[in-house]
Amino acid sequence: MNFKLKNDAFLRALLRQPTEYTPLWMMRQAGRFLPEYRETRKRAGSFLGLCKSPDFATEVTMQPLDRYPLDAAILFSDILTVPDAMGLGLYFSDGEGPKFERPLRDEASIMALRAPDVERDLRYVTDAVSQIRKTLDGRVPLIGFSGSPFTLSCYMVEGGSSDDYAKVKTLMYSEPKLMHHILEVTAGAVIAYLNAQIEAGAQAVMIFDSWGGMLSHSAYHEFSLAYMQRIVDGLIKEKDGVRIPNIIFTKGGGLWIEGIANTGCDAIGLDWTMDIGVARQKVGSRVALQGNLDPAVLFASPDAIRSEVEKVLGSYGFGSGHVFNLGHGISQHTNPDNVAAMVTAVHELSRKYH
Amino acid sequence: MNFKLKNDAFLRALLRQPTEYTPLWMMRQAGRFLPEYRETRKRAGSFLGLCKSPDFATEVTMQPLDRYPLDAAILFSDILTVPDAMGLGLYFSDGEGPKFERPLRDEASIMALRAPDVERDLRYVTDAVSQIRKTLDGRVPLIGFSGSPFTLSCYMVEGGSSDDYAKVKTLMYSEPKLMHHILEVTAGAVIAYLNAQIEAGAQAVMIFDSWGGMLSHSAYHEFSLAYMQRIVDGLIKEKDGVRIPNIIFTKGGGLWIEGIANTGCDAIGLDWTMDIGVARQKVGSRVALQGNLDPAVLFASPDAIRSEVEKVLGSYGFGSGHVFNLGHGISQHTNPDNVAAMVTAVHELSRKYH
Repeated sequence: MNFKLKNDAFLRALLRQPTEYTPLWMMRQAGRFLPEYRETRKRAGSFLGLCKSPDFATEVTMQPLDRYPLDAAILFSDILTVPDAMGLGLYFSDGEGPKFERPLRDEASIMALRAPDVERDLRYVTDAVSQIRKTLDGRVPLIGFSGSPFTLSCYMVEGGSSDDYAKVKTLMYSEPKLMHHILEVTAGAVIAYLNAQIEAGAQAVMIFDSWGGMLSHSAYHEFSLAYMQRIVDGLIKEKDGVRIPNIIFTKGGGLWIEGIANTGCDAIGLDWTMDIGVARQKVGSRVALQGNLDPAVLFASPDAIRSEVEKVLGSYGFGSGHVFNLGHGISQHTNPDNVAAMVTAVHELSRKYH
Repeated sequence: MNFKLKNDAFLRALLRQPTEYTPLWMMRQAGRFLPEYRETRKRAGSFLGLCKSPDFATEVTMQPLDRYPLDAAILFSDILTVPDAMGLGLYFSDGEGPKFERPLRDEASIMALRAPDVERDLRYVTDAVSQIRKTLDGRVPLIGFSGSPFTLSCYMVEGGSSDDYAKVKTLMYSEPKLMHHILEVTAGAVIAYLNAQIEAGAQAVMIFDSWGGMLSHSAYHEFSLAYMQRIVDGLIKEKDGVRIPNIIFTKGGGLWIEGIANTGCDAIGLDWTMDIGVARQKVGSRVALQGNLDPAVLFASPDAIRSEVEKVLGSYGFGSGHVFNLGHGISQHTNPDNVAAMVTAVHELSRKYH
């Protein structure tokens, strides 16, 4: 279907079309577990330096592909580029993760929130997308991505990572209208951002809802899923006659996959807690599934890895619609040789299911 | 059924017998959110000083009952008393939570692990249970508790809290036999410990599986649920002709409640992520359900609290078998007045469902 691609197994699996094996990529595949990444990051000076330079972003995006026969590339960037472009002042303090200089702490700052000018303020991202596409030269498809409105709002209200999300939940339960205002503005920004990535060359897009799993059932549907629904509705679905599939990933969202499938998304990302066979029974006739090996399996021996890979493949079972992935980003402490064992196991063991 | 108790609504709800309203208690109800607790802890000198003195443990156990009309008391203690009694050397370092001086780090220390002598090494706990029962004088039932074998093993292998459970998962995937050995010894210890609490006067017991939710579907069943099954099988079920109900709580375990119900436990604790009405449809004809308000709701206004309480009650619906609780321990930053609003709301609003 995508004649310029040498390997389009990933896109076909997302659309539940036949493939010869189960394609795979890894969340955070361009990351600290790779020595070549750490070397580039040193040269870039900082993590944000990497994200904001299309040259560096292209370099690290390609690194895992040069090491392993992965079936997709993913734009190297950070989900917090969007709130940064909204003027919140993203910075990284050593050992404490991302922080904002100007978090949303009162009604005035919330009501003053505006979607960024993507063409101007996030140009470095779309430039990276174009440059990566050129560099890939059709080897594998390129995935664009964004954080979900709820997850971005968490960071914007908390001012950084949080253990208990006390600030954002207090706002959500005490001042739901203000929370909805943040989410509305952010959802609009995410739609524009993802569509700009698609225009620049992203061939699939993924929404990372890292924190939606911390919500109650009803709060998840009202404050996270409803805004991902808007994004699915607002995304460009086809470019130059080719489908652009989308993936929704709520970490800890296994309980709600029927609702996620109801958005009309093409695929659902699963963390490692849900049995992928059970998930397929619930929604697999409507969407593809992406996942779901526990990243901690990669700390074990190649034999143990192979056996856990077989469990995931066997649980999904026969037929298309499965993109193999980890259930969460790969740990920086992973031995790169163990990743090779996983990639080989997926490609070899999955053939019998196709 | 329990004629010595002035209020046995909690026990009746656990056995799915009729009650006039939905009984409630709160996980961590004897805790830092109460100024009187903080005062007692200061006098005790330390958290472990509180746990190890039956006088202090009784004092803080009673504090929330003196402030609110709660329907159950829970022994004040810590889940890590068991590994401490196994010789691992529990201590608390400020701001970093619990730690062990001698974590399980090699095969020799794992194979040397022995169940504690409960009568000798955990006497301070059973003494506290007896003293609390006497002090309660039949006001409400007393809950005893333990950590689950898997959760205790996590702490024993990691040496303290962990973000990624890398050490315990590495052991589990690389050396499953060693992991099973730790779990077997620990499960035996937990059975002896809970039965000693029952003999000393605990009228219901709860197993806290705080970390089982970090496992994959198959690992949860193999490494956590299988050992909770052994505990359910090994527990004293009746004392002096009165049933002693048990509750299993796996935080993040909503996906697996059918399996949990299959253990034959009396009740399942639910965190706040699963809709309690959906949970009831799945397993409510076999077990009672305990939960499941998001503790963060208590950061909101009394009106918002009342409305969220109504959502939980309404979702469970008509009839018995529901013990109201938070989905996790109450935050130390909670305003005690907001707890009063919740307690009143539960007692008032639940009558129409009974």
